[in-house]
Parts: sequence; structure tokens; C-alpha cells
Amino acid sequence: MIRIAIIGMGLIGTSLGMALRNADPKESPLGSLEVIGFDREPRVTREARGRLAIDREARTLADAVREAQIVVIATPVRAIQDVLRDLASHLPAGAIVTDVASTKALVCRWAADLLPATVAFVGGHPMAGREQSGPGAADPDLFRNAIYCLTATSTTPAHAVEAVEALVRTVGAKPYYIDPEEHDAYVAGISHLPLLLSVGLVTATGNSPAWKEMAPLAATGFRDVSRLASGDPQMQRDILLTNPHGLTRWIDELIRFLVTAREQIAAGDVAAIEQMLEQAKTTRDAWLASKPHLRPGEAEFTNFPTVERPSLIGFRWPKREK
Amino acid sequence: MIRIAIIGMGLIGTSLGMALRNADPKESPLGSLEVIGFDREPRVTREARGRLAIDREARTLADAVREAQIVVIATPVRAIQDVLRDLASHLPAGAIVTDVASTKALVCRWAADLLPATVAFVGGHPMAGREQSGPGAADPDLFRNAIYCLTATSTTPAHAVEAVEALVRTVGAKPYYIDPEEHDAYVAGISHLPLLLSVGLVTATGNSPAWKEMAPLAATGFRDVSRLASGDPQMQRDILLTNPHGLTRWIDELIRFLVTAREQIAAGDVAAIEQMLEQAKTTRDAWLASKPHLRPGEAEFTNFPTVERPSLIGFRWPKREK
Repeated sequence: MIRIAIIGMGLIGTSLGMALRNADPKESPLGSLEVIGFDREPRVTREARGRLAIDREARTLADAVREAQIVVIATPVRAIQDVLRDLASHLPAGAIVTDVASTKALVCRWAADLLPATVAFVGGHPMAGREQSGPGAADPDLFRNAIYCLTATSTTPAHAVEAVEALVRTVGAKPYYIDPEEHDAYVAGISHLPLLLSVGLVTATGNSPAWKEMAPLAATGFRDVSRLASGDPQMQRDILLTNPHGLTRWIDELIRFLVTAREQIAAGDVAAIEQMLEQAKTTRDAWLASKPHLRPGEAEFTNFPTVERPSLIGFRWPKREK
Repeated sequence: MIRIAIIGMGLIGTSLGMALRNADPKESPLGSLEVIGFDREPRVTREARGRLAIDREARTLADAVREAQIVVIATPVRAIQDVLRDLASHLPAGAIVTDVASTKALVCRWAADLLPATVAFVGGHPMAGREQSGPGAADPDLFRNAIYCLTATSTTPAHAVEAVEALVRTVGAKPYYIDPEEHDAYVAGISHLPLLLSVGLVTATGNSPAWKEMAPLAATGFRDVSRLASGDPQMQRDILLTNPHGLTRWIDELIRFLVTAREQIAAGDVAAIEQMLEQAKTTRDAWLASKPHLRPGEAEFTNFPTVERPSLIGFRWPKREK
């Protein structure tokens, strides 16, 4: 029996719990599980329990991680620092800690600074989500076929990497090993920039004196491009604040694009606008067709990724250090 | 029997034909219909016929509009000028011409300049679409409950307005009368700006040297915000080119937003970022909750729109002028 503690029972924490508890212990590499849930708001933990995401509600952080082999921190990014600090003295020796935050460099630094040497940390980031938040929006299938970024260093114990990878596979996702800094630079472009553009679209139009007249005309295009603006502001705020270097570079890129497009539109430059639109369509259609939830190389066997991933064949839970 | 000619059998033209032919003649205010289709590519007209969008394929523009009571121009915006010029001498006296273009001011000016006095023009713009194009993507339910903008002036004959409104209701959409200039200013914000942001997101990330590594991480957020970039480049080009005044204003607004957000992110301004995110969420959630496809006032009977809409009660097809 593996005991997993989930700290933070929002959309991701609750979805993870549901997916873990739904897994068949005979088929899951983790075997049979007990999931303990904790949220600083007891009402939220109770709701997660109501959704069958956890076996038991913990009253305190210390209670949550008692005898836990795996601890998943699923709070907003900026809360992770405090959670790690508070957890440090309560974690059992040999425990494996992971998180689900959208930025990784800062979180990995906090973990290195704050966790005791008897505990292993593997950063995690499932590339999945939805605009609704809280346990009520949770979905056990949220991670199915999603890429799940994992960060490990040369000093991360193999059994810790194997355990977190087993957790990722148990919820139906695909482990994808990546350097934390690289992760942050990439997701700033494909995840945080889209968020900011959604918010920008709603801010620009919503602040207009004509918004009341415009709103009824807004249709599916507006709905989709603005979708991310309906996400959890607290979570989004932390994402934007913990990845400033990655994000500002992309904002500059977007401003450059808009300035150029504005000139071309004002000048009626047919050829340039046509080229811009055709290139974007080609890029996006190719992305869609490439089955984006395959890892690079997974589609072409000739190009198998060289990243080292511990095999799960013969995975056995290591003896607990006392 | 009303004869309707559709010029341009793309996504919208074909969807319109399908919706019109699906309508029950006993319930539709237009009664029984014959739909004639024309596209400058005979292959496309044939495909539309295969999708049961039209009763008959026309070989030429003149053939298409012969004895037509209603002519719907469903070509890309910039082609409308040529189509109107070519049609002018072939339109039967008393014919009613409408279009489905995403910009209205320029189209209304072209119609006023090019159409003979014996013909009436009512501009139209259904607020519905999808990123796929062509007859293969057509859907008879595309217009169901969608707002359908109509432009009419004080000199537009009442029977023409009634006929086009009847067509709009027949395909399940909701007529919404609006001034052409006002229309262009509004849709620039809620439709053309989202398009440009989709294209900008794909252009900025797709042109990055790291795109190959980033692409597999892109998930549903990227997919939705970039959706409009997969639309028909020819149609999009025309939209961007025929509404420069409306659009550049919104581009400036977006650049201002990005510059401000960039400063706040670089400075780690928690309060400002939080406020921006919360305000956007409030605006979008209210928009979603407001049943955006109701016309303003339709939800609250106390605020019924004062715009003059000819009643369809007792609608009879007027005698053809000879």
C-alpha cells in the first residue's frame, strides 16, 4: 500500500486524486493506494472527499504527510514556498515530493533550499487544465494522454524519479523530462502568452464604452480566444509572477508582431497580410496534425528521444528508509 | 415559390443553402423555395450540390440570378465589389440583394454605387463561423440562435428588409439591425482583433527557433487561443483589409495593454496583476452568463430595443416589379 498526500484540493489536486483512486491497483505501477487530502480551507477538502478524490481528509499539513511515501503539492505556485517550509520538519525520511505548478525554475530552487536531504524532489507540470477551478470542476480524465513535464537532476535518486513517473502513468499522462529553465521559457510562449492574450482581449474590449453594444455580437471566436481569462485569477497571478523573464520576452515578440501587422493593415499591404495569414495557418495546422500530445520522437521511431528515462520494468517500491 | 441565388459556395454560402433547404415551407416565412448556387469554381458548386445545399448549379452569374427574388453574395469581402459590378446588368428588377461579409461599411458603399435603382440592398453578417472552410465544412445548424447583423437605411424598401429578415429567421438566426460603421467598429474588437491575436500567437511561437521543442508542450490553452489562425486566409485577408480604421484602433488598445502588463510583470506588481486578472474574469463570466446570443433587451422586457423592425405578421411576398 502506497500512501499519497495531496496538498491543495483545487482543480488539479482533486482531479489527480480522482484519477489515482480510479486506477486499477492490479494494472497501476503504483499498486494499491491510499490518498490523503489537505487544503487550508477544510470546506474544500470536504468537497474533494465528496467527489471521491481522497480516502481521508487531513486536518493539518503534518497529519497529511504522516507516513506518506509521495507528497503532491497542488497549491498555486507562490504558496509552494511556504508549504515546503512548513512541510520540511514533518516529512518522513525517504518521502518523495512533487508539485504540479506551471513554472518550474523557482519551485526547484525552493525545493533544493528548503527540503531536508532525507527527502527527494521531482518537479512536475501536467499540460492540462480548464478554465473552471476548484474541486467541483475536477475530472479524473483531465490528464489522459496529456504531456506531464518532469524535472530531475543528476542527484535525484532513481527510485524517486521512478515513483513520480509511475504516478504520472497511473493518471494516464505521458512523462516528459525537461530542464526547469527550458520548461519555463517554452511554457511562457505556449501557455502563459495565450493566457495574457485572452486577458488582453477581454480587458481591451470590456473596458470600451461600447462594450454593452459589442457584447451581444461576440460569438464563438471571441469565446475561444478569451477562454483563459475565465481561469482562476489567483493561480494565474502566480504563474505570471513566477516566470517574468520567460514571459516578457514573448510579450516583446507579440508587441513586435502587432506593430508590424498594424502597419501592414493601415497600408493595405495585401501581399504581406496574405503571407502572414498563410504562414500562421500552415504552422497551426501542422501542429494540430502532429498529434501534439505525443512526445517528440514518439511518432517517428528513427528519432527516439535520447533523454534518459528510468524504465518501469521491474519497478518495485524501495524499502523505506527509517 | 421564392427563388434564392447564392453566389459563392464556401462555408457560409453552403451552410445557408443547407439551412434554407432544410426549412419546413409550411413554417418558414419565406414559404417554399428554390435555391440556385454559383461559385466561380464549378467543382465547389458541385460539392455544394452534393451536400444538398442547392437545387440547381448555375454555370454563370447571369444564369444564377435569372428570375431570382433574393440574391445572397457569400464570397470573400473584397470579391463583392466585382460581383456587384458583374451582377448589375443581370439582376431582375425588384430583386433583393444581400451579402454575408464580415465588414459592412465598404460593402454598403459598393452596393449603393454599383447596383441599379430597381434593385434593393440589405447588408448582412451572420455572427457564426468555424475555422474550417469550403462546402465540406458546411453545417445547416451554423446559424441557429446566432445574431445576424442587418444594415438598412431609411431608403431601403420595407419589403426588402422584410424578405431578408425572413431569410434570417428561416435559417434559425436572430436579426439585429445596426449601422454599417458602428458594426465595423464593434466587430473589429470582438471578431477581428481575436483573429489577429490568434495569428500573432502562432506567428510569435511558430517563428521561434525553439518551436519544435515547444510544440509538443502546447495543450488546450494554445489550441483554443490559436484556433482562428486555422481559418481561411483569403477570407481573413479581406476582413483585415476592408476594416483598417476599426481594427487599428483595437490593435493600439492591445499594444497599450501589453506594454502595461509587461511593466507590471517585470516589476512583480502583485496588486495590479491581480486586479487585471480579476476584472477580466468578471467581464468574461458576465458575458458568458448573459446569454450573448440574445439581442440586447431580449432578456429584459423593460428594455426592449427601440430599433424599428418590420413585423413579419402578415408578411406576403410583394408583387414582382416588371
